[in-house]
Amino acid sequence: MKRVSIVSTGSELVHGHIADANAPFISARLFPTAFVVVAHHTVGDVPGDLRRVILSALDEADIVILTGGLGPTEDDLSVEVVGGIFEAVPEVNQAALERAKAFFGAMGREMLPGDIKMVSVPRGARILENEVGLAPGFSLERHGKVLIALPGVPHEMRPMFQNRVEPYLFSLFPDGGRDSLTLRVVLMREAEVNDLVAGMNIPFDSIEWGITTSPGMNTVRFVARGSDPIPSESIMRQAARLFGERMLHPSSLTLEDEIVRLLGERGLSLALAESCTGGLVAKRITDVPGASLVFRGGVVAYSNDVKSNVLDVSREVLDTFGAVSEPTALAMARGALRVLRADIAAAVTGIAGPGGGTETKPVGTVCFAFAGMTADRAFTRTIPGARERVRMLSSQYVLDGIRKFIHSMK
Amino acid sequence: MKRVSIVSTGSELVHGHIADANAPFISARLFPTAFVVVAHHTVGDVPGDLRRVILSALDEADIVILTGGLGPTEDDLSVEVVGGIFEAVPEVNQAALERAKAFFGAMGREMLPGDIKMVSVPRGARILENEVGLAPGFSLERHGKVLIALPGVPHEMRPMFQNRVEPYLFSLFPDGGRDSLTLRVVLMREAEVNDLVAGMNIPFDSIEWGITTSPGMNTVRFVARGSDPIPSESIMRQAARLFGERMLHPSSLTLEDEIVRLLGERGLSLALAESCTGGLVAKRITDVPGASLVFRGGVVAYSNDVKSNVLDVSREVLDTFGAVSEPTALAMARGALRVLRADIAAAVTGIAGPGGGTETKPVGTVCFAFAGMTADRAFTRTIPGARERVRMLSSQYVLDGIRKFIHSMK
Repeated sequence: MKRVSIVSTGSELVHGHIADANAPFISARLFPTAFVVVAHHTVGDVPGDLRRVILSALDEADIVILTGGLGPTEDDLSVEVVGGIFEAVPEVNQAALERAKAFFGAMGREMLPGDIKMVSVPRGARILENEVGLAPGFSLERHGKVLIALPGVPHEMRPMFQNRVEPYLFSLFPDGGRDSLTLRVVLMREAEVNDLVAGMNIPFDSIEWGITTSPGMNTVRFVARGSDPIPSESIMRQAARLFGERMLHPSSLTLEDEIVRLLGERGLSLALAESCTGGLVAKRITDVPGASLVFRGGVVAYSNDVKSNVLDVSREVLDTFGAVSEPTALAMARGALRVLRADIAAAVTGIAGPGGGTETKPVGTVCFAFAGMTADRAFTRTIPGARERVRMLSSQYVLDGIRKFIHSMK
Repeated sequence: MKRVSIVSTGSELVHGHIADANAPFISARLFPTAFVVVAHHTVGDVPGDLRRVILSALDEADIVILTGGLGPTEDDLSVEVVGGIFEAVPEVNQAALERAKAFFGAMGREMLPGDIKMVSVPRGARILENEVGLAPGFSLERHGKVLIALPGVPHEMRPMFQNRVEPYLFSLFPDGGRDSLTLRVVLMREAEVNDLVAGMNIPFDSIEWGITTSPGMNTVRFVARGSDPIPSESIMRQAARLFGERMLHPSSLTLEDEIVRLLGERGLSLALAESCTGGLVAKRITDVPGASLVFRGGVVAYSNDVKSNVLDVSREVLDTFGAVSEPTALAMARGALRVLRADIAAAVTGIAGPGGGTETKPVGTVCFAFAGMTADRAFTRTIPGARERVRMLSSQYVLDGIRKFIHSMK
């Protein structure tokens, strides 16, 4: 086991203008390995602060990963501060210089002093090539400690971490790999998932596990403590029994992935009629590349006029049961099926808040319906919380309902 | 000026399961004040690590804000570790105990040892009431240093920070406030915004400023270095001249806020026809509470059938110009205007990728159209980047186009 500490530098981070995405990314990459992240530190572009934080990180960890501060401007301090700590003066890296010359030459631009600075690294450092940008990353080793410096721009840092840093770490410490397994469970309370996993027949002594929760989704992660593999087949078999259709297929990262895959496998097309979610369900479906093969389209029926004119929901149904009712949801789903000429249609209508609630239909009341050629289904849920949460969880219920509806079609 | 260091504790954070949202929130709240955040530290639920990081934070800063570790379970360590550092044994807080008793009583549940632990604080601490959850926050002062401990759950931490911690900090250090001003500029390159602001006639010696960029939006923030107010009127007048209609109204946090407000002011209703954005524009509009007063609805016309059957786009237009073309976009907008019976309609059709590009219409080609009773308008943009970026920026162009279209209606 090796202890890792991550330092992110950038005044915009400590000012709260943006949240650091690099430390969570690196932590998630290293989690299923024997490289244990013990701390993240974020510090502004202030030489004294940066030096103090790097020194304290080197003290607490075997490996320090520093992101940011490799650019051309005056407040990019990483080469200078790290060079000071490792007593290595900055010098130009020839390969990086050639790349930069070619780049600026193609743009018809001279290299400025800052650009020269950007291709400099502390003397004796090992270069970590930057496939995307111009500033190289680098690493230094001393007294059994390793410092790795990477650019702060996430789309430069990420490929460099995966393609350069990870192989380098595993070459330094070959026992770093650990086995892992991830399960995704939809629309179940975290405490319930927790209890079911805790009751599984698993060699818990040799496996770490944890749950991450987002609205309507629990992600369960198992990681081997040692270098032995974890009993994936046994865990998957038990999980299938305990969670049933609430568990996503291992190839699906999200519920929308799963639905696009399921529809594709069965040659079915989908249509949507959304009221309170206002396009969020369609947005999530079309987040999946290739959704156009199975998704016909949707109607965002925010006003009653649109429900009746476009989706053919009868005025009688709207007047008798109200816009937020199972009969209206069913009429919306049947209308979408017909108008958008799909095999399956889903509809959602509800009160997302903050206004619009009544005594019998408080904020959070949401009705769902699903229609196919030969069957349909409707249900109502009361979802507590603010507008954003009601909308997000409603979209999760729609997607989950579509999945169940597909399964019920045999 | 007082130096602040923020410590977030939680193993799920250093494991990379979730990103810490508390430190960025606190930093953003403190940015326009004389409380200068010098570092964020994130550490797992390991007593030795937590103690070491808190001690080092107390060393570098006047005020340490600790979030997390106040719950009922064994890995909630903050009271114990902070108590150890300040030599104050944990003791039950009576007011918090009474609240917890009432809460568990209403649920018909006994209080467990963990629940008692949750309402304990180090002896002598000042209590910071928790309006949302059961665990109180607290603060301790010694040798001119202040430590503030808050729950880690964001929806408990945020109101506690705003309602308890901020007044407490300003009572300790009354000179903490600084004046600030924020401008929001849409669809302009950051470098261009930067140059225009840098060229303004502003007392830069006494004002700090910075730009935060998100897709299609630059936020410019001015903060007074001292306690003098910043010349807001002069800055706003210059900005209005330089940025014109690209600058949002000061009351709008987002482009969708601005559009819902503008439509409401003018008594206009809006309809949407979306292809490549797949509901994202409708989702953004309906993110705004009260959107139902001005938003009629939308059609997500992902397939050509839906474009022709629902939006009445003629087969001839689709066959002659293709689905991604200005004539099709215009026909979609006119169709949405008619079918959804709105005053203004916007349409977008494009190739978000990764598939679907051709030589003449590469991935990223997106056509936009806007239609009203007496006028319409269309244009095409080529948006580089991945699917998510193309979709996000396309939605920004739609919203910006709606805004301009409203302004052009007089």
